[in-house]
Amino acid sequence: MTEKVVINEVGPRDGLQNQPRVLAPEQRLQLIRALVKAGLPAIEVGSFVSPRAVPAMAGTDAVIAGLPRDDIYYSALVPNQKGYELAKTSGIKAIGSVIAASNTFNEKNIRMSSAQALAVVLDLIVQSRRDGIDSLVYLSTAWECPYEGPIESRGVMALAEQVFAAGATEVIIADTIGAADPAATAALMTTLVCEFGAARLTCHFHDTRGMALANVYAALQCGIRKFDASIAGLGGCPFAPGASGNVATEDVALLLQQMGFATGIDLARLVEAAELALELTGATGGGHSLRWLQRQREQGRLRSDKMPPSI
Amino acid sequence: MTEKVVINEVGPRDGLQNQPRVLAPEQRLQLIRALVKAGLPAIEVGSFVSPRAVPAMAGTDAVIAGLPRDDIYYSALVPNQKGYELAKTSGIKAIGSVIAASNTFNEKNIRMSSAQALAVVLDLIVQSRRDGIDSLVYLSTAWECPYEGPIESRGVMALAEQVFAAGATEVIIADTIGAADPAATAALMTTLVCEFGAARLTCHFHDTRGMALANVYAALQCGIRKFDASIAGLGGCPFAPGASGNVATEDVALLLQQMGFATGIDLARLVEAAELALELTGATGGGHSLRWLQRQREQGRLRSDKMPPSI
Repeated sequence: MTEKVVINEVGPRDGLQNQPRVLAPEQRLQLIRALVKAGLPAIEVGSFVSPRAVPAMAGTDAVIAGLPRDDIYYSALVPNQKGYELAKTSGIKAIGSVIAASNTFNEKNIRMSSAQALAVVLDLIVQSRRDGIDSLVYLSTAWECPYEGPIESRGVMALAEQVFAAGATEVIIADTIGAADPAATAALMTTLVCEFGAARLTCHFHDTRGMALANVYAALQCGIRKFDASIAGLGGCPFAPGASGNVATEDVALLLQQMGFATGIDLARLVEAAELALELTGATGGGHSLRWLQRQREQGRLRSDKMPPSI
Repeated sequence: MTEKVVINEVGPRDGLQNQPRVLAPEQRLQLIRALVKAGLPAIEVGSFVSPRAVPAMAGTDAVIAGLPRDDIYYSALVPNQKGYELAKTSGIKAIGSVIAASNTFNEKNIRMSSAQALAVVLDLIVQSRRDGIDSLVYLSTAWECPYEGPIESRGVMALAEQVFAAGATEVIIADTIGAADPAATAALMTTLVCEFGAARLTCHFHDTRGMALANVYAALQCGIRKFDASIAGLGGCPFAPGASGNVATEDVALLLQQMGFATGIDLARLVEAAELALELTGATGGGHSLRWLQRQREQGRLRSDKMPPSI
């Protein structure tokens, strides 16, 4: 039996939120439909943040209203109570919330102390649990903070402990600035997996230093079987293509499938989704494997042997 | 004490041989001097092949005559007896020779059967041993052949056995088309390290599918402490930047240094060497970490704290 690994596609949220080009909800849905066609089992479809602060995420309720199929694990990011109310109204089945392992990052990024940020997150967990909504918690800057430098694992452990105790469905360990290396990944994830088990942990890597795929491999070796990834590597700074986006979905999918894991992803359709993502956003680049995948397609070696799922 | 890892820089050979722009020997020396300044301890400086077949490698004797310092482990690639004579005359202290693990690849690439190719390589080993020249043997297409597909490890083992028995100094396991994944790397390198020890083995990865750095990490875990890499990821097809070059020296150096290995490399000067490599060849791109390293430099975080070695 082939072991499964889940890729949680975050392109429609983490990938689009910083692009210079703001997509309309229908364009965001077009991308999501392409991702669903490619077989992505989990997709973060947007966030309920202030449209003034993040114009690219305005209309997330319209996106959710237009989502295809009901067997995809859709989630949306929620920063606070107001966002939670909107998420609940939208009918989304899973919310994400964020707390940084670094005090300074919480202060600079969301203008809250870590204690305040934790209180908000714990409150969102309790509410969502009560409302039958899954609660995914991002622990950001888990390895390194741009202000504080390397983060001690004790702090990450303590946060994970508290959010799990409050009822979080899953904790996402996020290398927000792409600073982790495989040794650091192995060290932190081994500790976390020993304490909480691999089944409730996801890893979220950025490719700033080109090490994201090596980090995915290191986390796989620790037993992690769920990874965030962004189609075409969208995300991070749009003016330095390939320099600081999320690890690309096509790179992770190719790595996993070649290593023999089952992802449910159709690589031919995934390439189409990556091309659509680049076309819609005007971004250049794509994942490190995209050109190779495109060449395989030109040579007839990358065929969709599955029927497209009906959406 | 910090554990050492050696990067063998192959840019001046593997990186330059396929570029559309042919560099003069003095330009090749300019690149080599920049690499020496950056602290590379081992450099493949060229090859003694027919200048009609590979114009970019014409004048390798002039390059060797102009090499700075004598404490760098310089090597040159040699395909046959004629090349060996030229290498010997040049005074180079180490030669590389190549045999593919795939029969079809030997036939298509060098128009010899595997038996013929092996005879040539064994003869070169015996001669170089007699002449006091180190003999490095590339086992190419060690994981996959573009014609035959996946390669069985038994064939690679048998070749390594024979070239070591003949007196080869070192065997370089080469993923010629960049098809290996970390699981395949771990499988083959574990077998080879068990049989021959890690000290006489080097890994040579191409980044065609974006997995090269993950493969380096997998090989490190098997005990491998020497890696080929090419400055700015030069190599492979020049018309698909980043798609099929060698793993970039700056990516490997950053990974190793961040993981705590000693490489002797000065990253600030390595960035300068990468920029020079791109300028001289007209190639675009560079390693996945190059932009990040350049940003660190802009922000004053990437300083050469070592005095430049006198060359």
